[in-house]
Amino acid sequence: MKDKKIPTRIYLTEDEIPKFWYNVRADMKEQHDPFIHPATGKPCTAADLEPVFCKELVKQELDCTTRLVPIPDGLMEFYKSTRPSPLIRARFLEKELDTPAEIYYKFEGNNTSGSHKLNSAAAQVYYAKEEGLTHLTTETGAGQWGTALSMACAFYGIDLTVYMVKVSSEQKPFRKAVIETFGANLIPSPSNTTDAGRKILKEFPGTGGSLGCAISEAVEVALKTPNCRYVLGSVLDHVVLHQSIIGQECKVALDKYGIKPDIIIGCAGGGSNLGGLIAPFIGEKINGKSNTRFIAVEPASCPSLTRGKYAYDFGDTGKMTPLMRMYTLGSGFIPSPNHAGGLRYHGMSPIVSKLYHDGYMEARSVKQTEVFDAATKFAKVEGILPAPESSHAIKAAIDEALECKKTGEKKVILFGLSGTGYFDMSAYMSYRDKSMTDYIPTDEDLRKGFDSLPKID
Amino acid sequence: MKDKKIPTRIYLTEDEIPKFWYNVRADMKEQHDPFIHPATGKPCTAADLEPVFCKELVKQELDCTTRLVPIPDGLMEFYKSTRPSPLIRARFLEKELDTPAEIYYKFEGNNTSGSHKLNSAAAQVYYAKEEGLTHLTTETGAGQWGTALSMACAFYGIDLTVYMVKVSSEQKPFRKAVIETFGANLIPSPSNTTDAGRKILKEFPGTGGSLGCAISEAVEVALKTPNCRYVLGSVLDHVVLHQSIIGQECKVALDKYGIKPDIIIGCAGGGSNLGGLIAPFIGEKINGKSNTRFIAVEPASCPSLTRGKYAYDFGDTGKMTPLMRMYTLGSGFIPSPNHAGGLRYHGMSPIVSKLYHDGYMEARSVKQTEVFDAATKFAKVEGILPAPESSHAIKAAIDEALECKKTGEKKVILFGLSGTGYFDMSAYMSYRDKSMTDYIPTDEDLRKGFDSLPKID
Repeated sequence: MKDKKIPTRIYLTEDEIPKFWYNVRADMKEQHDPFIHPATGKPCTAADLEPVFCKELVKQELDCTTRLVPIPDGLMEFYKSTRPSPLIRARFLEKELDTPAEIYYKFEGNNTSGSHKLNSAAAQVYYAKEEGLTHLTTETGAGQWGTALSMACAFYGIDLTVYMVKVSSEQKPFRKAVIETFGANLIPSPSNTTDAGRKILKEFPGTGGSLGCAISEAVEVALKTPNCRYVLGSVLDHVVLHQSIIGQECKVALDKYGIKPDIIIGCAGGGSNLGGLIAPFIGEKINGKSNTRFIAVEPASCPSLTRGKYAYDFGDTGKMTPLMRMYTLGSGFIPSPNHAGGLRYHGMSPIVSKLYHDGYMEARSVKQTEVFDAATKFAKVEGILPAPESSHAIKAAIDEALECKKTGEKKVILFGLSGTGYFDMSAYMSYRDKSMTDYIPTDEDLRKGFDSLPKID
Repeated sequence: MKDKKIPTRIYLTEDEIPKFWYNVRADMKEQHDPFIHPATGKPCTAADLEPVFCKELVKQELDCTTRLVPIPDGLMEFYKSTRPSPLIRARFLEKELDTPAEIYYKFEGNNTSGSHKLNSAAAQVYYAKEEGLTHLTTETGAGQWGTALSMACAFYGIDLTVYMVKVSSEQKPFRKAVIETFGANLIPSPSNTTDAGRKILKEFPGTGGSLGCAISEAVEVALKTPNCRYVLGSVLDHVVLHQSIIGQECKVALDKYGIKPDIIIGCAGGGSNLGGLIAPFIGEKINGKSNTRFIAVEPASCPSLTRGKYAYDFGDTGKMTPLMRMYTLGSGFIPSPNHAGGLRYHGMSPIVSKLYHDGYMEARSVKQTEVFDAATKFAKVEGILPAPESSHAIKAAIDEALECKKTGEKKVILFGLSGTGYFDMSAYMSYRDKSMTDYIPTDEDLRKGFDSLPKID
């Protein structure tokens, strides 16, 4: 039975912050298929991955059995400087919608990186430091991940090189400035600092770059530099593991007040925010202990779950990564340039893909103007300017709450508000001046993407 | 005696949020001099002020006797959606400085307005709504106040017109976009929507505008529009009253853990953040119950407390406001254009001025490159990107902590971190690329400002 007095914003005390990540794979009835080494066609071993990734992260990536993974003390120190994040009752949104539903959101944007990315950034940098590494490389597109990682590297005293997609670094000089303020070396990609960059520059002079190219540059530098590794902010299992701190905190807070969510909603790009939020809850569902519905929300313009194939694919457009079985539009799929709402990754976390494939989760796609409608409505009543990515979840939460209004059901809806939109104002501006349009790929558009899938299935 | 276990981030529970603002004037031995009506030369009455300001705010402005002013329930509802703000132990900064001092900061930037301004914005809009007003006007420079007010107006359903200094609206299109996203009508000033604007445009075609002009336009519209008033975000006594929620929360949190601050530091522009932070603590000092030192920190380029005169002056460059006795550089003083760190107001809250004049408080000025040094150091270890304004307080806190290192004293230092710097990245960029310079006005520069003082002292 519920405690009568639930505060609008539930903050756990420092002592209540969970001391373990939750590894949902330990509860999954079936594991997702293993990574395949593209050269050998065989499942990847730790030895295959360790030249690129930190040892402890490789271990976590391949661990399907440890249910609760302890968060190290040295990392908990960092978590305590940015966590717990608040779980907020959306009282004003409920009132605005005049819904009988109860809406809660877990807000991960109250830190300088502006998103949940910091949870995994800090973990990855912590392990790099423990391993004695001195240097990390990564790529960043819109810049959330690059910002989070630069913060974590400043904290732990690790050098960081960020390859930022050139056109993004030009369009978002302020993001670039934040990353540099935290001391990272930011290089617009493609650059002449790597073979991969020089090759692209030669073939496509004047190109604005791509995430695929930036990944290639970052991986190349990691492989060639002593005491250096590459880190990635989404998709991979160890990232979902770190992000489970979101769901773990939610669970403690909800349990404390006797609240049982009927529906849990998250936006889905690479899947780390969604995967982390739902992890402990979907574990209960797998074990038959709950009937909660889970909804992944993705952009109609980049619909990997709702219109993609469940197939082996490369993680990057440069086709350098191991092959992962996941929902994908093909690594050659490129969302329309007018898509402003983030979540533009062609694939999806293998864990999230498998859970969806096995029927534990629903997925839906939404159009970007609807997403900005929802974002603006939410901002006005709840007083938080949401990231376009997170606003996909808001849109679905509003739709579910309005459905409750029709049926009169008092459902409890929980969604993840993964970040803030302060660096996305040009997207808000194009929404406001109506230059924003909706784009839904045709079957022909999708076919082109699928043509890029490797022929191994 | 101190509780052993003090969390890194102290969040009050919802029930612990103070239910009263603290009106420091009720404890002051002497009141500051009254406002003078510039036309009559006599002290302003409520009737003089009510055509421009909401009735309840006028009442608060003139109330020197009510020590504890209840925060209305309908406003507390809003406060609970953004407050309490955290009181954070700067453990990592202490470690970085290797100081025996304990450093705490009250962080007011964890809301979409990015600053403490929301505390008074919400209060002012709440009272406007209660009075049956339907429309408010204001001016904004850098945009923090405009953002806060647009959020509060969206929440309470009041129309808002913001006159934004034209050059700021052009230099900060994203700030403008945030304000518009919350539904405010933003007009770059000077504009042709008012007599004042048209006059300026005729005299100075192509001008980038000024705060003084924007105030004139906003006040003119407020006076001419039915059910409309003008609102101001700093300087005035009722604003300091609302901001006392900062100090009130600090006091509850510190008392809870038995922490007694030796030094309290705040940045000072118009004085509302500083005044609100120190209010309940300086009340204790006035009553002989503490020996806490208070330090106001201002930019060397706009040194109203440290180099200004304590004199009657206009609140605006347009010379439309009542005359206030305060520390001032003269309403004609204009800080160097290369000054990027905010806090560019020529005067200072009459309350803060009087407290300083009567010796309850110290003041110091700091150079802007030093401020950005401190900001960057702080960001890297504490993981928060501070507003340039707030970084003035960081600079002084670091200096005090380093002094403790020399003397070996374990002082407890508390400072106000009034906001975040996400919309100030061009200033950070000019700091990083070394194009930022320091400017200290010469005595001759100051004399020109003092020449603009009214001749009534």
